[in-house]
Amino acid sequence: MSLPYLFINAAMSADGKIASRLREQFKLSGEEDFARVDRLRAESDAIMVGVGTLLADNPSLTVKSEKLREARRRKGLQENPARIVVDSRARTPPDADLLKKGSGERIIITSRAADKDKIERLRERATIITAGERRVDLRKAVEELERLGYHRIMVEGGATLNWSLIEEGLISEIYTFISNQIIGGATAPTLVDGTGYTTPEETTKLKLESIEPLDKGILLKWQIQR
Amino acid sequence: MSLPYLFINAAMSADGKIASRLREQFKLSGEEDFARVDRLRAESDAIMVGVGTLLADNPSLTVKSEKLREARRRKGLQENPARIVVDSRARTPPDADLLKKGSGERIIITSRAADKDKIERLRERATIITAGERRVDLRKAVEELERLGYHRIMVEGGATLNWSLIEEGLISEIYTFISNQIIGGATAPTLVDGTGYTTPEETTKLKLESIEPLDKGILLKWQIQR
Repeated sequence: MSLPYLFINAAMSADGKIASRLREQFKLSGEEDFARVDRLRAESDAIMVGVGTLLADNPSLTVKSEKLREARRRKGLQENPARIVVDSRARTPPDADLLKKGSGERIIITSRAADKDKIERLRERATIITAGERRVDLRKAVEELERLGYHRIMVEGGATLNWSLIEEGLISEIYTFISNQIIGGATAPTLVDGTGYTTPEETTKLKLESIEPLDKGILLKWQIQR
Repeated sequence: MSLPYLFINAAMSADGKIASRLREQFKLSGEEDFARVDRLRAESDAIMVGVGTLLADNPSLTVKSEKLREARRRKGLQENPARIVVDSRARTPPDADLLKKGSGERIIITSRAADKDKIERLRERATIITAGERRVDLRKAVEELERLGYHRIMVEGGATLNWSLIEEGLISEIYTFISNQIIGGATAPTLVDGTGYTTPEETTKLKLESIEPLDKGILLKWQIQR
């Protein structure tokens, strides 16, 4: 079965945190990185986030630059890439900004364990994909996304979804902007949380593809080695 | 009161972890980084670690290169820099490798809450510095180290000591080698753990001083901004 190209983009502190221990996102980068992320979004078929990130940050994940949106329109595309929430139990609030703001497709990927009423309410605003029994079967879900024509998918977190996708072998590249800040906190979310590996052999090996000083930090592009 | 120059050196995974969730250190770098760390040690007056790291890894923290040890001897120094454990409750085992292996001074920094018998046993192998009531008062402790002639101190972890020293404003620079691996794990130790900051204003701001590709990863040198 053919898989789409998935990559993670995230900003983290110099100590690997993507938010504070109170799950608040801090501004970690500046205008250069902001513009870079906006371009990455505009070049993608879809943006994917986990429901935890949606509930914590209520992001809209739209393309912010009018120029980039217009360029998409000229290509016959929607202004914004499709926005996808991975949400095993259909906890996405029907009034989430992601469902309300900007034009473009919305997709909620859920499992068979999700409440039927909640799903019906979300179906008014989003395409529902069901994959997996109690939790979303990510491999099946992204196979379905590929079938639906989403070939290039940008993952914008959070830490748990990043882990699940990496562990499943579904990620091809990781862009990390490393900020000139220390956040600290034993329980603060990091770039990749979840269960984690317990032996050196298991760890996901990367190849450093590029290094770019940006704003006051640095952008690293890693390729996943299989 | 005059303070010594303290810097942190640590290797972390691309997602900010310094060990697995089982607190096991994985090999994160290669020979180039190994030689760099050995040189940094040899150039320091003292190496400092927290007791958590000592209990988890039982490190000796000696200078590994015979050449570097000889160069220290020629300068009239001990073969190894002084090895310092920050240990509020005197939990350092008297047979720890750090106390047994290699020549050079040993210092255990403890608080008034530590068990007197344990302290007396450790005093046979180490100089004891007492600073603070229930926990080590780090500022007082490093002032005392400066007075004793330890001007350049390399901190080799772990995550909790790094946090306490950074929060106290006692660190001048941070060297982080970023490895081409993902470890993951919501509870795995990161470069800086502890309580963590909860507002953007509080975060410790850094200046990126240098970027150096090394082994299969990258070495970043950050200067702390005050």
